[in-house]
Amino acid sequence: MTSAPVAAGKHDAAAAGPLAIICGGGMLPGTIAAKVEAQGRPVVLFAIRGWADPAVVAPFRHHWVGLACYGGFLRLMRQEGCRDLVVIGVLLRPSLWQLRPDWGAVRILPRIARAFRGGDDHLLTSFGRMLEDDGCRLLGAHQVAPDILAGEGRLGGRSPSAGDEGDIALGLGLLAAQSPFDVGQAVVVANRYVLAVEAAEGTDRMLARVAELREAGRIKISRGVGVLVKAPKIGQDRRFDMPTIGPQTVDGVARAGLAGLAVLAGGVIVAEPQEVARRAEAAGVFAVGLPVPTGQGPQTP
Amino acid sequence: MTSAPVAAGKHDAAAAGPLAIICGGGMLPGTIAAKVEAQGRPVVLFAIRGWADPAVVAPFRHHWVGLACYGGFLRLMRQEGCRDLVVIGVLLRPSLWQLRPDWGAVRILPRIARAFRGGDDHLLTSFGRMLEDDGCRLLGAHQVAPDILAGEGRLGGRSPSAGDEGDIALGLGLLAAQSPFDVGQAVVVANRYVLAVEAAEGTDRMLARVAELREAGRIKISRGVGVLVKAPKIGQDRRFDMPTIGPQTVDGVARAGLAGLAVLAGGVIVAEPQEVARRAEAAGVFAVGLPVPTGQGPQTP
Repeated sequence: MTSAPVAAGKHDAAAAGPLAIICGGGMLPGTIAAKVEAQGRPVVLFAIRGWADPAVVAPFRHHWVGLACYGGFLRLMRQEGCRDLVVIGVLLRPSLWQLRPDWGAVRILPRIARAFRGGDDHLLTSFGRMLEDDGCRLLGAHQVAPDILAGEGRLGGRSPSAGDEGDIALGLGLLAAQSPFDVGQAVVVANRYVLAVEAAEGTDRMLARVAELREAGRIKISRGVGVLVKAPKIGQDRRFDMPTIGPQTVDGVARAGLAGLAVLAGGVIVAEPQEVARRAEAAGVFAVGLPVPTGQGPQTP
Repeated sequence: MTSAPVAAGKHDAAAAGPLAIICGGGMLPGTIAAKVEAQGRPVVLFAIRGWADPAVVAPFRHHWVGLACYGGFLRLMRQEGCRDLVVIGVLLRPSLWQLRPDWGAVRILPRIARAFRGGDDHLLTSFGRMLEDDGCRLLGAHQVAPDILAGEGRLGGRSPSAGDEGDIALGLGLLAAQSPFDVGQAVVVANRYVLAVEAAEGTDRMLARVAELREAGRIKISRGVGVLVKAPKIGQDRRFDMPTIGPQTVDGVARAGLAGLAVLAGGVIVAEPQEVARRAEAAGVFAVGLPVPTGQGPQTP
């Protein structure tokens, strides 16, 4: 059910030129860069100052750029012969003054300002449209490295129980209902009761909250019950802000006393899948990729 | 837009007998007991062990009861000549073993167990139905003391700006969309961006989270922007679990750096309204009661 990969085989690497990778925070930009290089396509990393991790970008050809140095960024893209780009990694919503726009960005500032008044989707989609207007081709991480997405079925640990399946179904329903409001992409449900909904805090902090509420006696449901459910928003442009899980997500699920985690197959990135499986096994929690509900297939332009 | 009050004037106090008030945590049970007594109707408080505050129930005729000592509770109700009852105050979801049911409760345990598998609404509604099957008449706090509900318009502080109005509209829409999933009754929206959604943690902790996210730099929206929006679930039985604000809510809104709070008029209890107005004024935030959207009038059976 994943979208067609745009790998070396389909687009001749020489013709398409190197792939530009705009790097936010976290390990994922490095993982994807390595996967694309392994396919035979060169990469150029554009490490965003204040977000990208120097150790992650160091092994690859890279430039450091400001988030709103749009003119400089476009110039570098052209110099490097890049037309295709992906945006990867954590990018917190900055305040406008933090963007420190260059002269190339002044032209697009009104659009940035409008985008800031919407949710995450709106902001990122708007950024993508600007790039495409300037002749770039924006790809999703899942298009340049399809094997980073969760597959269907067991990702690690044991299998969900019938009770877990009920919690998963309720969580998916709630995420779908919230989708038009551009809220977060994860919820925690235990015994059909919604314990937590992710918004600006992100998944890790939401799981920490569940652990704290349990310690404080605010959650009286026994340990080993409850599921983290994570899925992309319906209609989300999957070239941006794909939901991601990794080993620290499994640790968070275990600390929150949940039974496991469930993600939409083909719709969620799994960072370090072997480590995810190992820790799920060790902690006695499940990690599972859910079949995509009918009529909600991945939407990749 | 509030439902008809069931006060001394409409139901002769002698005929209806004293009002039983089942007391959870917080100050509200005492406030309501005083208001009902002031109307000339006697009250008997049933203070739930582990939840009710001894200092709050002390000034009134009261009994201490266990949450699942259903048989004992019904017996006391009859002895006291009570037929009408209200359930007031914080009642955290207990685990089944904590209920320590008596013999009177054994008969209804299968229903309790079924109710536990649903969300808050389900649990409380189920409890209400049991009481009504046993000849009690369950009333809402707003029926015995209508002036505890938020009115329409300014509750304190300044007026919301056009930008605030947009955040309020988005918040109300999100709460309506979440309603079938029995999630919490409050969200925080800033610049059309959903910062936080309340679930098991409650409103105070959600506001504390927004304050922490801001201090940690995870929220880059300037201070003085954003609204706490609070409304009952659509179709909720308003005799249970009415959303409530009080002075500590205003303090939380101010600490979170928001512009103000907005609640659905006739659908949210305001504890200590003078103090709410005073603190909103002092902190420079707004507190406003919203007109009920068409087709979403209060639903009181």
